[in-house]
Amino acid sequence: MEDNKFSETHRAVYYEGDKSGRVTMAMLINMIILVSTDQSDHLGLTEKHLSDLGFGWVITQYLIDVERIPHIDEKLTLTTEAVSYNRFFCYRDFWVHDEEGNECARVHAVLVLMDHETRKMVRVLPEVIEPFGAEYTRRIERLENPVGISDEDTVDFKKSYDVRFFDIDPNQHVNNSRYFDWLLDSLTEEFLMSHNLKHMNIKYEKEIHYGHKIDSIVVIKNEGLLTHHQIKIGDDVYCEADCEWTER
Amino acid sequence: MEDNKFSETHRAVYYEGDKSGRVTMAMLINMIILVSTDQSDHLGLTEKHLSDLGFGWVITQYLIDVERIPHIDEKLTLTTEAVSYNRFFCYRDFWVHDEEGNECARVHAVLVLMDHETRKMVRVLPEVIEPFGAEYTRRIERLENPVGISDEDTVDFKKSYDVRFFDIDPNQHVNNSRYFDWLLDSLTEEFLMSHNLKHMNIKYEKEIHYGHKIDSIVVIKNEGLLTHHQIKIGDDVYCEADCEWTER
Repeated sequence: MEDNKFSETHRAVYYEGDKSGRVTMAMLINMIILVSTDQSDHLGLTEKHLSDLGFGWVITQYLIDVERIPHIDEKLTLTTEAVSYNRFFCYRDFWVHDEEGNECARVHAVLVLMDHETRKMVRVLPEVIEPFGAEYTRRIERLENPVGISDEDTVDFKKSYDVRFFDIDPNQHVNNSRYFDWLLDSLTEEFLMSHNLKHMNIKYEKEIHYGHKIDSIVVIKNEGLLTHHQIKIGDDVYCEADCEWTER
Repeated sequence: MEDNKFSETHRAVYYEGDKSGRVTMAMLINMIILVSTDQSDHLGLTEKHLSDLGFGWVITQYLIDVERIPHIDEKLTLTTEAVSYNRFFCYRDFWVHDEEGNECARVHAVLVLMDHETRKMVRVLPEVIEPFGAEYTRRIERLENPVGISDEDTVDFKKSYDVRFFDIDPNQHVNNSRYFDWLLDSLTEEFLMSHNLKHMNIKYEKEIHYGHKIDSIVVIKNEGLLTHHQIKIGDDVYCEADCEWTER
């Protein structure tokens, strides 16, 4: 079977780390998007090329497994592979390895192709995905949705965030790593310094724009080892996530 | 004369850019601090070593001149030199060059040594600065202070920001680049997309901590070519800055 993986090395620098010196989830996500962008550029399928066709890739879901969050100053290997696609979805995997070759994290991502004009999902064009070696499949993955938060839940924390000018990245969207800062910052410093994220399921529901004011809401369960998150504007849910934690 | 400059290359990646694809000021500052940290590590004078002695460097002022803000995907050369020191201050210069060797930005920084216990400035210890090749001088630079904002000024914009968990960096402080996001985000998208920063004078007055809620206040003068900024908590000024702009 052909190996369609694409890898590059990346030094985690101090401004990619949090107070504990560990790489932040936001920066981990930024890094994996970097390697997939570099793969696209390598194949001549740049964002600009896609944008000129009137389209852009949009991530709708990440399933993240963390073995060990890397520290700053580690030399990491970032790897990605566009594994398969069907009519509407593309499935891409990512791996982050440390210098000894140990897996630090792996991420499974679901992407759709969006029409820039209508802002709606369109059928995946084979010509923009097949060069990556992704195989066509009729199977649509049935991935679990985040549990979310119901009216019966008692909200543990709620914080509001204004979307800033610098949250918008060169692709003209709120950089999807920013959601991780909003989702996790709503937990306390004490919680974040005493827990390690093991698994995260995050689903993006609606586009957030510059100037929006969002609420990040958390319900803590299972004695702090499970957290349910929502990002809302008013009563509308823009993003949901579940996180599984271990004590540090 | 001995050359005490230290340089490294850095690829500006997409998550270091704003909507226009230009490197953000916050990331430019992060990059120059990275090269000075690497110089310290290179000389065996790590942050940890200094911290074990009970001290840390704190930046009190930056004078920034921008020729051209680099774009993402440019391969930059970051250079730094600890130029001189006196009893209380250390003066360090930074340069950012593009691949053709053109100067994109230069920064003059004033640093003090802080006692971790008392959180107060102490006399500069020759042994932590001389290995950088900095020369002792009795001269204290008389740098202009930012003009600031007076009661007579009409405030054009005011936005509030909560200091987040992820604003704290591995050195246990609010990363000093975050101030740039707070200062500049308070301007409008329209302003930021139609102006280029040419010069900035920023002075840090007091330490900001996790959990603080700060106000970022702007007065626009000279038909938008000059902006005066303050970061305040209540009536107390924590940071002041002046920015000079050209139209894009």
